[in-house]
Amino acid sequence: MTRAEEVVVGQRIQEWLEFRRDLHRYPELGFTEYRTQAKIAERLEALGYRLRMGEQVMDRKEMLGVPDPSIIAAARATAIASGARKDFIDRMGDGMTGIVAELSSGDGPIIAMRFDVDALPLVEASNQAHRPYRLGFASERQGLMHACGHDGHATIGLALAEVAARTAHDWSGTLRLIFQPAEEGGRGAHPMVAAGIVDDVDIFLALHLGCDLPSGKLAVSASDMMFSTKWDVRFSGQAAHASGNPEAGRNALLAAAQATTFLYALPRHGRFATQVNVGRLKAGSARNIIANSARMEIEVRGGVEEALEHMEKRARSVLDGAALTHGCEVAIDEMGRTIGAPSSEGATRLLRQSAQAIPDFDEVLDAWPLGGGDDAAYFMRRVQDCGGDAAYFILGSDLAAGHHATTFDFDEADIGRGVVLLKRALQLAGDHVGSRR
Amino acid sequence: MTRAEEVVVGQRIQEWLEFRRDLHRYPELGFTEYRTQAKIAERLEALGYRLRMGEQVMDRKEMLGVPDPSIIAAARATAIASGARKDFIDRMGDGMTGIVAELSSGDGPIIAMRFDVDALPLVEASNQAHRPYRLGFASERQGLMHACGHDGHATIGLALAEVAARTAHDWSGTLRLIFQPAEEGGRGAHPMVAAGIVDDVDIFLALHLGCDLPSGKLAVSASDMMFSTKWDVRFSGQAAHASGNPEAGRNALLAAAQATTFLYALPRHGRFATQVNVGRLKAGSARNIIANSARMEIEVRGGVEEALEHMEKRARSVLDGAALTHGCEVAIDEMGRTIGAPSSEGATRLLRQSAQAIPDFDEVLDAWPLGGGDDAAYFMRRVQDCGGDAAYFILGSDLAAGHHATTFDFDEADIGRGVVLLKRALQLAGDHVGSRR
Amino acid sequence: MTRAEEVVVGQRIQEWLEFRRDLHRYPELGFTEYRTQAKIAERLEALGYRLRMGEQVMDRKEMLGVPDPSIIAAARATAIASGARKDFIDRMGDGMTGIVAELSSGDGPIIAMRFDVDALPLVEASNQAHRPYRLGFASERQGLMHACGHDGHATIGLALAEVAARTAHDWSGTLRLIFQPAEEGGRGAHPMVAAGIVDDVDIFLALHLGCDLPSGKLAVSASDMMFSTKWDVRFSGQAAHASGNPEAGRNALLAAAQATTFLYALPRHGRFATQVNVGRLKAGSARNIIANSARMEIEVRGGVEEALEHMEKRARSVLDGAALTHGCEVAIDEMGRTIGAPSSEGATRLLRQSAQAIPDFDEVLDAWPLGGGDDAAYFMRRVQDCGGDAAYFILGSDLAAGHHATTFDFDEADIGRGVVLLKRALQLAGDHVGSRR
Amino acid sequence: MTRAEEVVVGQRIQEWLEFRRDLHRYPELGFTEYRTQAKIAERLEALGYRLRMGEQVMDRKEMLGVPDPSIIAAARATAIASGARKDFIDRMGDGMTGIVAELSSGDGPIIAMRFDVDALPLVEASNQAHRPYRLGFASERQGLMHACGHDGHATIGLALAEVAARTAHDWSGTLRLIFQPAEEGGRGAHPMVAAGIVDDVDIFLALHLGCDLPSGKLAVSASDMMFSTKWDVRFSGQAAHASGNPEAGRNALLAAAQATTFLYALPRHGRFATQVNVGRLKAGSARNIIANSARMEIEVRGGVEEALEHMEKRARSVLDGAALTHGCEVAIDEMGRTIGAPSSEGATRLLRQSAQAIPDFDEVLDAWPLGGGDDAAYFMRRVQDCGGDAAYFILGSDLAAGHHATTFDFDEADIGRGVVLLKRALQLAGDHVGSRR
Repeated sequence: MTRAEEVVVGQRIQEWLEFRRDLHRYPELGFTEYRTQAKIAERLEALGYRLRMGEQVMDRKEMLGVPDPSIIAAARATAIASGARKDFIDRMGDGMTGIVAELSSGDGPIIAMRFDVDALPLVEASNQAHRPYRLGFASERQGLMHACGHDGHATIGLALAEVAARTAHDWSGTLRLIFQPAEEGGRGAHPMVAAGIVDDVDIFLALHLGCDLPSGKLAVSASDMMFSTKWDVRFSGQAAHASGNPEAGRNALLAAAQATTFLYALPRHGRFATQVNVGRLKAGSARNIIANSARMEIEVRGGVEEALEHMEKRARSVLDGAALTHGCEVAIDEMGRTIGAPSSEGATRLLRQSAQAIPDFDEVLDAWPLGGGDDAAYFMRRVQDCGGDAAYFILGSDLAAGHHATTFDFDEADIGRGVVLLKRALQLAGDHVGSRR
Repeated sequence: MTRAEEVVVGQRIQEWLEFRRDLHRYPELGFTEYRTQAKIAERLEALGYRLRMGEQVMDRKEMLGVPDPSIIAAARATAIASGARKDFIDRMGDGMTGIVAELSSGDGPIIAMRFDVDALPLVEASNQAHRPYRLGFASERQGLMHACGHDGHATIGLALAEVAARTAHDWSGTLRLIFQPAEEGGRGAHPMVAAGIVDDVDIFLALHLGCDLPSGKLAVSASDMMFSTKWDVRFSGQAAHASGNPEAGRNALLAAAQATTFLYALPRHGRFATQVNVGRLKAGSARNIIANSARMEIEVRGGVEEALEHMEKRARSVLDGAALTHGCEVAIDEMGRTIGAPSSEGATRLLRQSAQAIPDFDEVLDAWPLGGGDDAAYFMRRVQDCGGDAAYFILGSDLAAGHHATTFDFDEADIGRGVVLLKRALQLAGDHVGSRR
Repeated sequence: MTRAEEVVVGQRIQEWLEFRRDLHRYPELGFTEYRTQAKIAERLEALGYRLRMGEQVMDRKEMLGVPDPSIIAAARATAIASGARKDFIDRMGDGMTGIVAELSSGDGPIIAMRFDVDALPLVEASNQAHRPYRLGFASERQGLMHACGHDGHATIGLALAEVAARTAHDWSGTLRLIFQPAEEGGRGAHPMVAAGIVDDVDIFLALHLGCDLPSGKLAVSASDMMFSTKWDVRFSGQAAHASGNPEAGRNALLAAAQATTFLYALPRHGRFATQVNVGRLKAGSARNIIANSARMEIEVRGGVEEALEHMEKRARSVLDGAALTHGCEVAIDEMGRTIGAPSSEGATRLLRQSAQAIPDFDEVLDAWPLGGGDDAAYFMRRVQDCGGDAAYFILGSDLAAGHHATTFDFDEADIGRGVVLLKRALQLAGDHVGSRR
Repeated sequence: MTRAEEVVVGQRIQEWLEFRRDLHRYPELGFTEYRTQAKIAERLEALGYRLRMGEQVMDRKEMLGVPDPSIIAAARATAIASGARKDFIDRMGDGMTGIVAELSSGDGPIIAMRFDVDALPLVEASNQAHRPYRLGFASERQGLMHACGHDGHATIGLALAEVAARTAHDWSGTLRLIFQPAEEGGRGAHPMVAAGIVDDVDIFLALHLGCDLPSGKLAVSASDMMFSTKWDVRFSGQAAHASGNPEAGRNALLAAAQATTFLYALPRHGRFATQVNVGRLKAGSARNIIANSARMEIEVRGGVEEALEHMEKRARSVLDGAALTHGCEVAIDEMGRTIGAPSSEGATRLLRQSAQAIPDFDEVLDAWPLGGGDDAAYFMRRVQDCGGDAAYFILGSDLAAGHHATTFDFDEADIGRGVVLLKRALQLAGDHVGSRR
């Protein structure tokens, strides 16, 4: 760390943690991150970043799984009520909650970094053993929670923006910070890619905190970014009196229960990782009626495209079989999709050199399993297709519980580590790209 | 039919049908029938009936499955907005939507009649083949529907009230009309019984339209009133990232799917009717999270108490087995219960004589399967325990589709038949009770 | 009982019980009852009955579910080894183990009585609480057991044959005793009907011991003879290494498990009894191979034909749905079928009169649920179609455990009651038919 | 290949293929490989190898999953009938079908090689597209098949024995060939290890043909040898008449169907490979009886011990949950177990050097997924514990269909490649061990 960096980090770290905790208190689901993004935008603007947002950075046609207008309207109102600047809210339009912030300093390469900002629909743990609760920064929005560390990611992004702005003399090029909505469900990256925001990028970096990698360790690539497909499934049957004439019913709830069971029982692939989940199920209307409708939210994943295709094909058979068994109709809507992408050798080398240039990591690994997917892969593939380099790295962090658990928590000290690493990468990027060209 | 009756029925039938169709347009769920009951009360008051309602006729402590206060508040507001008199709404208090109306004419016996008024949570069919839709009186409340004919029951009760009031010279005694809420789910009768409203009754009658008995036929008793138990079941598990560490999850959604499946697969009783239904299921929060909670609304039924006990015992094993399989906790709340009750010989004889005295029925049967349960049985048992006679009869009506189907519809002509039958029973009740005493 | 009857019964009852216990020791499955039938035939021959058997009384083309030739050959050999007369074995041919025995005495009516003789594939209980074991007459054939009382039925038939033969002076007509094989599975009656053996019958009677009706009670008809269909179902899939490439497998075992589950979960009929059972399931070849075949033996039942049709249709959907889910093929073979048949009023009146003429029964009921089906109904329907009368009656008997339990046992005292009742019916049949004609 | 080797291989390859096809025609299951082993022993004896077999090389106490004595007796008789030498059969005793053959040539290291010889219970495909059928060497034993290539392994072992014996001048040390029974099910290696046969080994090698690695490629280690546990599971319930009183039954068949379903639906591990299979299921006795017993053969696997422990623990919950659901008892017997073992660096280096010394392979990989487990790992762990080196390598071979498919077939040309590779390893082993010491 240079002296200038040390000063910035030392002075600011406390405020960054407060920023992170503020985000944690106000979690927002994908495509409704109005307050989160407005707070980030406000600070970026103050730092002198050029801001693009809403339809400037997202292609509306390519957005899948956008919430109902009423939900978006409520989210906007809530954001404003909790201090978000209305002009930003307006610029983000209907669900287009992506932000791209840019700062240039000389004629070096364009380096883009992606930070995801959305939360999850979970009731956060409320007991003294859970640090966010004990320290008073647990979610104030019942049923929503930052249980995957995206509040940490967003904070790293903002803190880096600050450090980069205040030490602009020691790096050269263009820093493009992408604050991406709706990573959960794999929906936010694709419309930003479609809007062309990474077409000219030389180096692209994205990260994830935790993933069972302990604090102090860094993995310069993710070894198993899963390919995945997200479906909403609806079974339609026939209502009937459950006691009077059940024989006339077509039980959509039972069809969904069958489908659920046999989705989990799908034959896994012998060679590649394959996974399936039925995350939500809602069916029926009253206790004494044979349910005539059921709705499931599911995802299937594969370590490679071939494995995902196997899972998709078999999952369709399971759904069709459930419909046939119970005399129901089934409809499948695709709500999202993620791909896997390998990290470029050039970009992982940059990360390794950056880590070696600072004293923050006791071990640097070539790869570590991500344990899931990330639609950052869409950015990576586009960057690579356009001739740039891209990497996805894992920033180790000791966790209180696994990702998506209601007691999830990471070690906040790792936020500083991430900021310093990215600052160094920004600095070294010029040499790196130079050598590549 | 006497001349006086003929005049009343002939003049009024059109308005009664309009009243029924109005109820059909504004269906209300159990314990929220504010508008329905206020409309009924308004007319009964005008006819000179003494009205009791709310806590006067319902024992609050005995009410199970009362909706959340917010739902009740919304129902009250909606009722007022759609023309219900606020003083009635206030008298019905929080969910105590029962009404008892009484008229006396001489010193004859006390004859009570029960009419249930609640609707079901179904989306009514919206196509030309469905008469209520074609004629413009389909439900205006999305997701609610009179799909069991209780709008017809309530109309028969109100029409009878009118005929009885206008022909008070030709009958002797006290007519007590019970407009019962929350028959669906078996919740409304018990708190009214507990309030003592049938303790002094000589003859009690309750009816159901339809039940696969064609128009023009009458069955003077129901042959299989099912005993039933209603449970709300909750599975609690452990959330986890569906891809990152599914092994740490405890899947409450899958536990519920298993329980659903094996509840339906319960061994039925060899000698007595037994039934089970999972009417609602809601589980999980997001696609990529192992669901940590699930909630089911179920009911089990048996033709006799022994059969119900068999089903309850086995159903508990199924629920416990599902919890054990998936490492979850399960909790069972009893939300309602119905019993079966035999019709008294005296009361069925009265019905048979009444039917023979009028030309409206081409066939009178001793019994017909109800095809389900009705908590009218609680009234019947109490009346019988106190020395009175009680009967539950089926008023045939051609149906467009079975009860609880989204295309359910009955033949409105049968409303008049029911009114005339009950008027005659009211008239003959004096002789009947006299002969009994 | 006449004096002559008393003498016969008193002298013989002990030997009849020994005969029954001998049959109990040597149970035989449907179409392999060589020893049982040979023992019966030997005694009937000695009593002077004309015997017909094998292809004389069974139409080979109409036989379903005949065991493999190797099984039949083994059964024949075992029968001979345990004392059966070889000439009878030979006359019964391959699986045609039916016997018809006839005795005439004057020109009265033809009265036929059906007795079924087959056992079940169960391992009989071997503990002191089980009377057959305690008294030393439990099955000596591991895996086979008389667990439905057919050893009692056969003994009643034989004892009646003896009484009738010794008291031939006091009845007039032709007594035709049908010892039917393969009642279990509903396979034996139909080929005997097809052979024409009841076309000329005036009165047909069949019975069942037990059925939860206590000793000392008689029901002159069975109230719910179930219609049923028996299917053998085969799923064919694709074998694969369970660990190496499970994705290439098509799991027939899992398809069968799914089908089993959802057959039991079929919606029952609201008005009529409906039942389903998967009695046998065999699938797969080795622990580490995805199973490529599975075979199930199932039955579906309905209280009326409409209810059976509902169950058959839905069961096919379940089987097709399981095949589709798991990418397997499914084949369904019909292996048997039973119908229900109402008892004729004339024949039940004869039974009632017979029971009243003797002091053996403390209660005579019009009807009692059979709790299952009996292919005696094929005889009944044919007799009725040809102008005769037929009844199926339940002879009460206290049971140690329900039918088909491994601890099943009935009260042997009821054998005598059955014999006396049938003897009286034989005697009164002349008057009865006379009055009918 | 040296000139001497070339001569041997060239002269003998045709006979080796015939030997392989002979083995293929007479497949034998684990612990009954009497004919296979006797044929091998006969040839080894002729080549001058010292033979140990039966209890000399297997510890009877450590054998799991030994077939019934009647099955073993039948296998012995069949083997003798098809040409096996009786003295060998006798020496192999009851199920102890292991053979160890040894040849020494100088004072070099002890090098052991393991070849498994057992087949699988599958009905081999019988169509022209299947080469073994087309060429007339398909299985002559209905229901048994060499579907995993162990006939190829055994042939490689025998061919190597021949080459080594005929070129003894060009290698130094002791060659110990282990022909192992019962690799399927993971039962054969452990008792041979317990008998001490590899305690003094310097280098241990085992191989598998195929595994989706194409012909011409070699992988010098297997990257995912699965840890696994094999269980036999028995559910015990209560029989009852399926129609008469199903409520009295406790359905073991349905419990097994439930267990099957939810075993396949077990949550997989996020980081390590995990697998489960229900390979066989047999339940019930007759169509109209609620089944009172069911038996399943299952296995669970994990890529590391922790993952296997997760699967075992969860699988027990599934089995217990199924028993609880259906009121049955469940018993679990462990029938086998495999472990994973890493290949030693020294042994993989030897393989790589051997491959480089010959022109047979176009690509040599460090590792390739085995796609399953192999109890060769028990040998490997023991050798390593005693200070030796061990490797498990994959010998690429183009397959007609995956392992354990009924159309499995490998490319016989790869047998020669395997023989030459092992011969070279034998030759280089002296240097290798020398450098190690």
